[in-house]
Amino acid sequence: MNDVFHALGDTTRRRMLRELSEGEKTVGELAAPFEMSLAAASKHIKVLEKAGLIRREARWRSRVCYLEPGPLASAQQWLKQYEHFWTERLDILERLLREEDASKTPNREGDDP
Amino acid sequence: MNDVFHALGDTTRRRMLRELSEGEKTVGELAAPFEMSLAAASKHIKVLEKAGLIRREARWRSRVCYLEPGPLASAQQWLKQYEHFWTERLDILERLLREEDASKTPNREGDDP
Repeated sequence: MNDVFHALGDTTRRRMLRELSEGEKTVGELAAPFEMSLAAASKHIKVLEKAGLIRREARWRSRVCYLEPGPLASAQQWLKQYEHFWTERLDILERLLREEDASKTPNREGDDP
Repeated sequence: MNDVFHALGDTTRRRMLRELSEGEKTVGELAAPFEMSLAAASKHIKVLEKAGLIRREARWRSRVCYLEPGPLASAQQWLKQYEHFWTERLDILERLLREEDASKTPNREGDDP
């Protein structure tokens, strides 16, 4: 999990994952949208690979990268244990809004002209 | 998001969050389960604080730390965009298991003694 979260802690690497979520890409294609050398892009790709977030595979004349969703699923699983914190907050907010709504509804006839 | 994922990329910091999910704690209480100096623990706490994952508040004679779930919710939200990758895989797995099950069910009478 350390490698996974470390890999996700960088804007470029998160954008690379986004790109790969649309389909496999060569290293060149993956590096193209970023203003950086192929060497710098390659470093980011290696961090993603080490975390198991992407895999590289040899194809005929080139190597392609593709997304490996397993570690993202594990990260989401880890975050799930905290979910009740925000769902509880949303429940409270919803109740408050409902109470506010209810207090605005006229209870007695003749209150409004 | 860089700060949040960076903060989560460390076992000690993830365990500290786990501790705080059970209730607020002083820095001393938070550092106690870990075999490290108070200074080292304090460094980790600062990383969590910078990422907005925890807050520190002065109480009568001490300062307590408590969990701030907002950034965890954002991290989960970010991961959600990839969710279809593993839910699709689970769907495929479920279909395969069902097909296997169906093929095991005897269709013709007299097959079994």
